[in-house]
Amino acid sequence: MSTALQSFLRPRSIALVGASERSTWSNTAYANLRAFGYSGHLHMVNRSGTDTYGQRAATTVTALGEPVDLALLMVPADAAEATLDDLREAGIRNAVMLASGFAETGAAGAGKQASMLARARSHGITLLGPNCVGYLNYVDRTPVFTIKPPLPALAGSIAVISQSGAVANLAAQFAHRQHVGLSYMITTGNEADLDSGRLIDFLVDDPATRAVALFLETVRDTERFAAAARRALEAGKPVVVLKIGASEITAKSAQAHTGSLVGDDRVFDAVCRSLGVVRVNSIEDMVVTTEVMARVGVLAKPGIGLASISGGICEIMGDRSEAEGLTLPPLAPETAERLREILPDFGTIHNPLDVTGAMILKPELLGATVAAMCCDPGIGLQVTAFDVPISEQEERAYSRPALESIQRAVGGSPVPALVFSHTLQSMTDHSRATVDALGINYLPCGVHHGLSAIARTVQWSARQRRAVQDRAAAAGAATTSTNVRLTPVTGERVLLTTLGDAGVPVVPQHLATDEAQAADVAAALGCAVALKIASPDIAHKTEAGGVVLSVQGDDAVRAAFRRIMTSVRSAAPDARIDGVLVAPMRTGGTELFVGIHVDPQWGPVLALGLGGIWVEVLKDTSLRRLPVREADVRDMLDELRGTRLLDGFRGQAALDRDAIARAVVAISDAALAFGPALRTLEINPLLARPDGVEALDALAEWQDAGEPGNRTEARDASH
Amino acid sequence: MSTALQSFLRPRSIALVGASERSTWSNTAYANLRAFGYSGHLHMVNRSGTDTYGQRAATTVTALGEPVDLALLMVPADAAEATLDDLREAGIRNAVMLASGFAETGAAGAGKQASMLARARSHGITLLGPNCVGYLNYVDRTPVFTIKPPLPALAGSIAVISQSGAVANLAAQFAHRQHVGLSYMITTGNEADLDSGRLIDFLVDDPATRAVALFLETVRDTERFAAAARRALEAGKPVVVLKIGASEITAKSAQAHTGSLVGDDRVFDAVCRSLGVVRVNSIEDMVVTTEVMARVGVLAKPGIGLASISGGICEIMGDRSEAEGLTLPPLAPETAERLREILPDFGTIHNPLDVTGAMILKPELLGATVAAMCCDPGIGLQVTAFDVPISEQEERAYSRPALESIQRAVGGSPVPALVFSHTLQSMTDHSRATVDALGINYLPCGVHHGLSAIARTVQWSARQRRAVQDRAAAAGAATTSTNVRLTPVTGERVLLTTLGDAGVPVVPQHLATDEAQAADVAAALGCAVALKIASPDIAHKTEAGGVVLSVQGDDAVRAAFRRIMTSVRSAAPDARIDGVLVAPMRTGGTELFVGIHVDPQWGPVLALGLGGIWVEVLKDTSLRRLPVREADVRDMLDELRGTRLLDGFRGQAALDRDAIARAVVAISDAALAFGPALRTLEINPLLARPDGVEALDALAEWQDAGEPGNRTEARDASH
Repeated sequence: MSTALQSFLRPRSIALVGASERSTWSNTAYANLRAFGYSGHLHMVNRSGTDTYGQRAATTVTALGEPVDLALLMVPADAAEATLDDLREAGIRNAVMLASGFAETGAAGAGKQASMLARARSHGITLLGPNCVGYLNYVDRTPVFTIKPPLPALAGSIAVISQSGAVANLAAQFAHRQHVGLSYMITTGNEADLDSGRLIDFLVDDPATRAVALFLETVRDTERFAAAARRALEAGKPVVVLKIGASEITAKSAQAHTGSLVGDDRVFDAVCRSLGVVRVNSIEDMVVTTEVMARVGVLAKPGIGLASISGGICEIMGDRSEAEGLTLPPLAPETAERLREILPDFGTIHNPLDVTGAMILKPELLGATVAAMCCDPGIGLQVTAFDVPISEQEERAYSRPALESIQRAVGGSPVPALVFSHTLQSMTDHSRATVDALGINYLPCGVHHGLSAIARTVQWSARQRRAVQDRAAAAGAATTSTNVRLTPVTGERVLLTTLGDAGVPVVPQHLATDEAQAADVAAALGCAVALKIASPDIAHKTEAGGVVLSVQGDDAVRAAFRRIMTSVRSAAPDARIDGVLVAPMRTGGTELFVGIHVDPQWGPVLALGLGGIWVEVLKDTSLRRLPVREADVRDMLDELRGTRLLDGFRGQAALDRDAIARAVVAISDAALAFGPALRTLEINPLLARPDGVEALDALAEWQDAGEPGNRTEARDASH
Repeated sequence: MSTALQSFLRPRSIALVGASERSTWSNTAYANLRAFGYSGHLHMVNRSGTDTYGQRAATTVTALGEPVDLALLMVPADAAEATLDDLREAGIRNAVMLASGFAETGAAGAGKQASMLARARSHGITLLGPNCVGYLNYVDRTPVFTIKPPLPALAGSIAVISQSGAVANLAAQFAHRQHVGLSYMITTGNEADLDSGRLIDFLVDDPATRAVALFLETVRDTERFAAAARRALEAGKPVVVLKIGASEITAKSAQAHTGSLVGDDRVFDAVCRSLGVVRVNSIEDMVVTTEVMARVGVLAKPGIGLASISGGICEIMGDRSEAEGLTLPPLAPETAERLREILPDFGTIHNPLDVTGAMILKPELLGATVAAMCCDPGIGLQVTAFDVPISEQEERAYSRPALESIQRAVGGSPVPALVFSHTLQSMTDHSRATVDALGINYLPCGVHHGLSAIARTVQWSARQRRAVQDRAAAAGAATTSTNVRLTPVTGERVLLTTLGDAGVPVVPQHLATDEAQAADVAAALGCAVALKIASPDIAHKTEAGGVVLSVQGDDAVRAAFRRIMTSVRSAAPDARIDGVLVAPMRTGGTELFVGIHVDPQWGPVLALGLGGIWVEVLKDTSLRRLPVREADVRDMLDELRGTRLLDGFRGQAALDRDAIARAVVAISDAALAFGPALRTLEINPLLARPDGVEALDALAEWQDAGEPGNRTEARDASH
């Protein structure tokens, strides 16, 4: 339970440091406190001790002479450290720092920020910012915020955290126009101290917050972020993120503008999948998705029931649902029966259900329809497309009775039900009054954005249920982790052996030091073999004549051994030669690619894909942060565009997905066991067949770059 | 020039047939005429001759005793034909028919509709509907419309045509909230007579209409639609379509609800590409895209310049632009120089350009920035993200001066410039007044939808320029079409020969009737050959032992010939045998797939893809309606996900895209030359190599299904 930020985000007293009626920041901050009706103690501090807003001002916070929960520092960057000293004197532990001129300006600013932060830490001061515009606590009506938010402030269940003050306010404005209330809006700026991870962690325990929306340029503390996101998932609180940096142009901009390292977008995407964090691409979708998820929570069933009074809208919703991967279950016979009683002259009963213009004369049909669909055994969420009129002029005789009938229907529903406007629009005083009076679960987000939000909700719900199960399983099971430590290996053949010892299925390889030994090994294997030079000094074996494939029979093996030795000695006379590796030739099967690299922000990341063109041309890989579990690997295989190839394409038998999952988990565990020494590990191919999986080649790079022997190759060309 | 619908859509007099103060239809139609301020003559007709709306009513239109341009028929389906007779008597040539109960109800209704239509045609009456809600002509303030549109009616430059009355009105409402005016809104219902094609054709010549938005379930007359769309493209009038039916569930619904055959969505997509018709997926995007295109027209350059006062929004716009495939050119040195003068304390000058909060104190910076970007040689369209305040309360000191400065900048701009709101929102009286007063080119569509619209505009502009060039080239060149007619061929080897004669590069095949001849052919070819039984009666040659590959040398060829003969005679003793085909073995190269099938709505459609898994697993094909030109084929190759493979993957030399284009055009022309007899034609593979292209196998199916010999195979397994 994270309560550390209680006094920060719910202060009973606030000092405005730098309060001045000539400062826009100060005036706006003060106006916001008045507009929200902040009920705590408010203190004015400025250098000259000039009365401000009709209140006496102290020249320092220490001079206030009483304890204060939070200081809003409206002082320039150069005054920051002296002000922090003043706060320490006064015993103030929380500060919002607006000043720009720190890390966002470059190296010198970053140094200034580091020094300032060190001082805050040594004083035990928690800091929001610098280079932020503060926060709004809607629940306790506490704004510590220096730009004007949309008013009147509407308290609700979603929290917005944003590294950009402008984007935060745009999101708040959009939410306001959607009649969506917030619990908190927090701008984090440079995140010298408080960052998204710590704030999510606080919000997981905040009873007012049901879902969190994030606008991010970067994740500064990935471990903290991951831990908080994991807690949020287990608690059933969705975290929805709009993170920029997918494009090269934006990645460059972010670095130039605020020094943010946006990171590898595909890795962040993989992290989100692992953590059950929901990604969106627009401010509209960020707000709508977070609000939809806050309203409906974890869905027990993925089936969606859709209804409209227009056939055209039903068709649009049907197409959109399929594009978003939503399941629209056919209605159960009992539902269809009930609907036929409600809509007697009706032809076909479908989902999506076109209630038709019949409801214009009998508006309560709409509610009766919703009630019937909500009871369908396949439906986990019901959505009706219907516009709440935005003006007296747009009211129709049927509008209000229809909405009332929906509201009654939803009251007795076993599953959540929502009403979306047909197209995205702003609420008006008129429509707000209708929605509030009826208490209807309405969002004017339009069916396009609304169904996207629902698709994310369905995916997140499945992920959430698995997280809960995983946690239960982990709690019940004894810890099986053996905490094995592996050390970097220098010889190529040792890598495959090491992986094999660590539980990765690998092709057997035998070192033969003379041709007789090679022939014996081949005879023992009883099949065609591949021969390959074993030397720590030869990187390009094929070019050196060090590889011969598909050799069978005693004489042929002996001849191949001699051929390799002759070629290699001529190509690389000084190379140390351990001998020749003999391995059985593998044919058939499907080649997979497993690659692990260490992301500078997120640590080891595993890429899984089909080999050859799938990886090389289509970049068809699925990524996950380590460690991965078998369920993750199965998800990854499902995500591949070539996933069908695993199920027995062109009359081949299906591959063993479970065996693949076990092998990939073993590779993942081995990579972690190598610890920070590992830079990259590539298993290519991991050969999958209906009866099992085998790593044929492995290649590792170790952190000591430039050293000979830092590249360990265990490449068996027998495929 | 299409003027046929002038009196229909711009009537100087209208008869309301079925006028009654007790009818909602009638009342709404009359209220709309009043609200729009229709200035023509209005006549009331009802059976009883009851005065209506304070006007004398006639019992029939004939009894009106004067010419009337258009009749709005508010009579039930059963009275339709008698009413048409009355119209003929009165000499009325145009009618809007609201009644439902026709083709949308099933076979009986379809019969009723056919009979009604036949009568209208024989009377020379042009008909809109049935099962529609009429149309609105905003330009001449002429509503013939029986549901209530958003008011006050705002005339503008986009026309909306919709098969669904509800969707039409939702689009009009959305447009109204965006402060987007319409020229026409036309609901077409069952389209017994007037359909989207004829209406587009009219609108191409309508000076008030700059772009057309369509909501379609189906295209009833594909030739007319295609011809009208082609004219629109050449005229530089965008056609934007929201067509449902991409999902199976919607395809089924549409058929059940209105009898519409939605057709193959991928084919429709291909048709849109051919015709330069722009596809969108939501009502929001339909309206926004059409309006953006109406405002900016054909873009001369694809580069987009973006500016905002928020770094976060710049980043969001950068990401969105890349996702939409937009080009954001780096700013030219002279632009950067000019911007550095305008924004002196500025670090980096980027596109997207973050003007920063500097403009809060100096709002005219925004206009100066826009002016500089508009003059950049790489920029064809400039977009600024900025919110026009929606209320007095949201006005900031800088808002209006900033907007004024943009407006001044745009006045002198060599390229179009737009202002988008940050997020999608509705206009208010306050923001409408600001926009109208300043005359600013503002859309409150948000940058997310706005940039999608711009991406479509860029793509359409390129397509439009090509259409104009093509037309110019076609006008200058002598007609080269030879109008060759090909007849269906029955023997397998004849198909490849026929294709070869028609200009398709095909692998040489030689019929050998004895082993000596086979050996001679092979010797003449001087390479390894493939031998294959030639028999009209053997469909599965490999299974019958009728294929031997990679044969080289006199004896081997003779042996293979004998082996084939023995096997085939034993497997199919009664088969007629023409001999054995001898063809050179081809190795290497990249296999392409070319398939032509006849779509029931759109006629012959060509699919082009890479062979093997690309077609079979990834369904990675590009489609076009026939005929295709070489430029189309090059586009198709670019659309393939595997397109990189053509450019010399893994050290291979690049394939000859021009040669591929020529071959595919030859195949397309040959398919058309076969005429309606052709059902499918498959060239698989079309083997492409750096030095050329060759069809190795061909397979045709002909329209006389069930007949022996209707399947012509020319399959050469030599690959």
